[in-house]
Amino acid sequence: MFRFTSWGESHGPAIGCVIDGTPPGLDLDEAFIQKFLDQRKPGTSKFVTQRREADRVKILSGVFEGRTTGTPISLLIENTDHRSKDYGDIKDVYRPGHADFTYDAKYGFRDYRGGGRSSARETAMRVAAGAVARKVLGTGVNIRGALTQMGSKMIDGDNWDWDEVAKNPFFCPDKDTANEWAKYLDALRKDGNSVGAIVEVQADGVPAGWGAPVYGKLDTEIAAALMSINAAKGVEIGAGFAAASFSGVDNADEIRMRDGKPVFMSNNAGGILGGISNGDTIVARMAIKPTSSILTPRKTITSKGEETEIRTKGRHDPCVGIRAVPVAEAMLALVLADQKLMHIGQMG
Amino acid sequence: MFRFTSWGESHGPAIGCVIDGTPPGLDLDEAFIQKFLDQRKPGTSKFVTQRREADRVKILSGVFEGRTTGTPISLLIENTDHRSKDYGDIKDVYRPGHADFTYDAKYGFRDYRGGGRSSARETAMRVAAGAVARKVLGTGVNIRGALTQMGSKMIDGDNWDWDEVAKNPFFCPDKDTANEWAKYLDALRKDGNSVGAIVEVQADGVPAGWGAPVYGKLDTEIAAALMSINAAKGVEIGAGFAAASFSGVDNADEIRMRDGKPVFMSNNAGGILGGISNGDTIVARMAIKPTSSILTPRKTITSKGEETEIRTKGRHDPCVGIRAVPVAEAMLALVLADQKLMHIGQMG
Amino acid sequence: MFRFTSWGESHGPAIGCVIDGTPPGLDLDEAFIQKFLDQRKPGTSKFVTQRREADRVKILSGVFEGRTTGTPISLLIENTDHRSKDYGDIKDVYRPGHADFTYDAKYGFRDYRGGGRSSARETAMRVAAGAVARKVLGTGVNIRGALTQMGSKMIDGDNWDWDEVAKNPFFCPDKDTANEWAKYLDALRKDGNSVGAIVEVQADGVPAGWGAPVYGKLDTEIAAALMSINAAKGVEIGAGFAAASFSGVDNADEIRMRDGKPVFMSNNAGGILGGISNGDTIVARMAIKPTSSILTPRKTITSKGEETEIRTKGRHDPCVGIRAVPVAEAMLALVLADQKLMHIGQMG
Amino acid sequence: MFRFTSWGESHGPAIGCVIDGTPPGLDLDEAFIQKFLDQRKPGTSKFVTQRREADRVKILSGVFEGRTTGTPISLLIENTDHRSKDYGDIKDVYRPGHADFTYDAKYGFRDYRGGGRSSARETAMRVAAGAVARKVLGTGVNIRGALTQMGSKMIDGDNWDWDEVAKNPFFCPDKDTANEWAKYLDALRKDGNSVGAIVEVQADGVPAGWGAPVYGKLDTEIAAALMSINAAKGVEIGAGFAAASFSGVDNADEIRMRDGKPVFMSNNAGGILGGISNGDTIVARMAIKPTSSILTPRKTITSKGEETEIRTKGRHDPCVGIRAVPVAEAMLALVLADQKLMHIGQMG
Repeated sequence: MFRFTSWGESHGPAIGCVIDGTPPGLDLDEAFIQKFLDQRKPGTSKFVTQRREADRVKILSGVFEGRTTGTPISLLIENTDHRSKDYGDIKDVYRPGHADFTYDAKYGFRDYRGGGRSSARETAMRVAAGAVARKVLGTGVNIRGALTQMGSKMIDGDNWDWDEVAKNPFFCPDKDTANEWAKYLDALRKDGNSVGAIVEVQADGVPAGWGAPVYGKLDTEIAAALMSINAAKGVEIGAGFAAASFSGVDNADEIRMRDGKPVFMSNNAGGILGGISNGDTIVARMAIKPTSSILTPRKTITSKGEETEIRTKGRHDPCVGIRAVPVAEAMLALVLADQKLMHIGQMG
Repeated sequence: MFRFTSWGESHGPAIGCVIDGTPPGLDLDEAFIQKFLDQRKPGTSKFVTQRREADRVKILSGVFEGRTTGTPISLLIENTDHRSKDYGDIKDVYRPGHADFTYDAKYGFRDYRGGGRSSARETAMRVAAGAVARKVLGTGVNIRGALTQMGSKMIDGDNWDWDEVAKNPFFCPDKDTANEWAKYLDALRKDGNSVGAIVEVQADGVPAGWGAPVYGKLDTEIAAALMSINAAKGVEIGAGFAAASFSGVDNADEIRMRDGKPVFMSNNAGGILGGISNGDTIVARMAIKPTSSILTPRKTITSKGEETEIRTKGRHDPCVGIRAVPVAEAMLALVLADQKLMHIGQMG
Repeated sequence: MFRFTSWGESHGPAIGCVIDGTPPGLDLDEAFIQKFLDQRKPGTSKFVTQRREADRVKILSGVFEGRTTGTPISLLIENTDHRSKDYGDIKDVYRPGHADFTYDAKYGFRDYRGGGRSSARETAMRVAAGAVARKVLGTGVNIRGALTQMGSKMIDGDNWDWDEVAKNPFFCPDKDTANEWAKYLDALRKDGNSVGAIVEVQADGVPAGWGAPVYGKLDTEIAAALMSINAAKGVEIGAGFAAASFSGVDNADEIRMRDGKPVFMSNNAGGILGGISNGDTIVARMAIKPTSSILTPRKTITSKGEETEIRTKGRHDPCVGIRAVPVAEAMLALVLADQKLMHIGQMG
Repeated sequence: MFRFTSWGESHGPAIGCVIDGTPPGLDLDEAFIQKFLDQRKPGTSKFVTQRREADRVKILSGVFEGRTTGTPISLLIENTDHRSKDYGDIKDVYRPGHADFTYDAKYGFRDYRGGGRSSARETAMRVAAGAVARKVLGTGVNIRGALTQMGSKMIDGDNWDWDEVAKNPFFCPDKDTANEWAKYLDALRKDGNSVGAIVEVQADGVPAGWGAPVYGKLDTEIAAALMSINAAKGVEIGAGFAAASFSGVDNADEIRMRDGKPVFMSNNAGGILGGISNGDTIVARMAIKPTSSILTPRKTITSKGEETEIRTKGRHDPCVGIRAVPVAEAMLALVLADQKLMHIGQMG
């Protein structure tokens, strides 16, 4: 019901999206959306791409006198830093880990400038749409994200402090780890290398009951939403892959009554049972592969089938997982907004 | 385009599904589908539930003179072993890890007999539909699955032998590990406990080009399909969560030419780049939580909000991950069949 | 949200459908559905086909202890009167007006027994699903239908009496016209001919606000639903085609206040403005072509491309428009149920 | 598969749309699209609205080096003539025949400037998208439209000349009738009145086989597409409502062989049998109600429920049916493009 359609390429005149199904009467302006876009914006630290994009969002429809009208909301961001540089090096050579090869295999040709449609630039619109989804969810639902692992370096869960997330350039909830990551990533970057990461997103305040038994399960939708993010290779809910090692005795989230309300004594379920929210915090994690654009030469072929090597120059994130944090939050918000409306639709 | 809709509860008269969008003229009969259902059938060893279901499939529409007509295929399996036993113990008590609590939270009441709609019995129809999907894919695409981890016990990847999978009751590709699992699971079962598992599915023969850049990405669809399976808590493609620890240098699947064709020197991508198949083997993995129905008492509450304990008696799989293997294969087949038809639709 | 998927052919073992998205807790049993099926049942008068089908519906899922559970409802009707007759005459000859030619053109072959998937037998499931839709709508919404024209013979609108509809075999709201039609259709039938008709359906009690501005417009959905019925060739809302001749002055449905509520002084809009219900009666009409199966020989070709003639023997409705009345009611109910839930979903 | 999503209001900064599923490699530029937009453009004669909109389309994504890339195509048209006039007269008064009342009933408030989302301005994007659909269909499919009735004045079918359509401001295929309409409409316009119309669209070159038996029927999709156009109140295929008066003998489109190919001797079916194209010309008609914005005062109420009258000043089409012709063509093109790709998807 709450649908989001994005369009655009990294080097076209603009990117944008259309959001349909928004309830009317929600306060919405560009400043609110911009706040979230600024979290994902390039160039905010030396640990992310130096591409200069103002990422200034414009609302083109669906909002009247500061409130949503209930009709499609169109958002647009102009691309301002698509340098007319020479793309000769990637025009005919397939960058390993990128979609160059598969786009050519499917479509016969491709917009090679900066990855075209496969560019992570598209995720800006997800963040923008996610801001609208947050309005649909209201202030009762709180969606937050953090980077919990960079390369082989995990945070210490005992140090988790949500307030830290905004204080370092990594969305890291563990102050000590953030300092460690700064050195680690700096070294990798200077070495012409990159690294993967794990992002965790949580939603508090989701009432029990959102989701569905088989079609439109809440965990299915979250898995799809997160896996659709560029460079995602894995998704898990609650205990996730760790649950494979658990026994049934250990895995059971036992239930007690507290202040007249059911409370789960643990959250291996990640807030979802049988595809439906159980009222506990929704917890999801996503694995992001290392940035494929690296300065270290890698073996590849040309579009004509000749063997060659490629070094990918340019302004790339050494760890794309960092800027994936606001994107993952946005995707969770989009799924929850849709599920909220679906739930209300069926249940009244 | 190739859509699958299932219906039914574990204790109703039957379960079934409707498959739409099948190309016409494909040879299809009940025996072909039955072969796959028999892999998932209960009661085949002491390591799976002893419920007795013949799981005999009937084709009710869409096939004429042994060939698909291109119109909706309806499949039905009668439920033959829904014992009219006393469900009093689970009628009013929420089993931890089950959907009892969330169904009540959403719908206000539920079919408590054997889990109703949340029962894994529904996955029989996925297996049946998966058989039809294999027909759509043709013999050029080979889909196989295996159990690669049970509890804390992983297989040794070096011992992987696809021929072993059919020779043990675990779909285990490693003979030695299978023997180990037999003792391990027996002990757990006798102990009134259960355990989680990891399932790996692979598809060989998928040509480069299936999938789409942002909407209908191949990895997104696979993630959704696998996460929609009962008890799934995580999904990964290719290197998956391990990719988080990789450097960009290590993660790059370098490309060479072999016999005039592009060949990837590794498969961290799991056969998918930018949402589109790259011609390499599609590799996906799924984490299955331990069976929630265990004989060991767990703390919980009643539907009236009273604290209590529950032991779940009955005929349960000590490791639901085992019978999830043919289900995961089926879900991969369903996704690939849909993607094949979508690809042909757009590309001709 | 409220989705309906049907399956089955006239000469397979059964026909059925799956209904998803039903709110839970609605009273529902087979008897309630049967009541509507009996209105469409063949063999109830000499003016409809003499095929003998009990059309006995079974609920296979989604209902527990007499109430909907909110999960997919599966309905099934066994085909009991598919005589094993010789279909040689229609196996290789295309009946004009039927889908024989187009099915072969599309699929390369077809289930030629009684029209297979193109048989109007499929509409039984629409009627059954429509009964469930009425439950979703509740008693506040009243959906009724009538035959307003048979061949060139229109009813006299001034004589419209809803109570008459159940008293004659034509769903005719005008007693005098019903008598006239009896003679008219009898003559046509004996003459080996058939005739077209116009069906009108109305829904009272739909509140203002259901629908959407561009996607999912209420009139769009009604047009699609009615046009999807076998033999439908036209659909109109309110004044419909007559509005083409109107001036703007005459077409305007002026508004006044009555008892503190807005009242439209006319209903050229058919209860829909800008794709959204206005609170007035929803009025839609559908043109049904004459039965294509007639005893009078018609020129045609064989599947091998030889010119020939065909007379379609068998037990056919001389005016399929008659039994289309309960089908049209059902389709309107299905659309309104979906729109109701969509509306609640967006608006709360 | 070939999906079209539009957004925008008449008085926002722009309107636009996103088109997904286009095959790659199709030649496409703004000039090609503009040609169709110019047919619908306001201000081209005294018989249409004098609003001045350049309606200059921009392609923002999905086209690279003059060819479609297979990824979403975003089109945008800036609104240049949204005068900052005083809307006080329609802000609080419901114009009969418009969506003012229903939007308020649904959403609680509305963008009252020029109708907001309900403005026919949105149809410009349909025309633009229709141009892309024509590219998908290729030159083998020829889609044309004409106005066949204005108010009570029908064309003479015997005078039908497609070449005339471009020579008069009415898309009228009958020269004599066009002259008559000029006087007729001029009088109506000066009288502060407006009038309805009937639009006919045809598609030649559609091969037999597009469509589906029950879901996604070709006639269902066409009915929905045309009924979704602003002011549409009726849709018919082939003989349409006239078929209600036909006998089965007269209605049968008999088939003969001509030059080794099947040929229908008549086209009451409008090129569609059983939801699937039969290779003959697709013929559809749509009834358009008279423009609701008229200078003659009509009784209505205010948003506060007070009785009043309204005269709608401004620059309005006296017969919106005229500019609906290119819109109807576009909608037919969109449906056929989707059906073509769906057909290829299932049938290869």
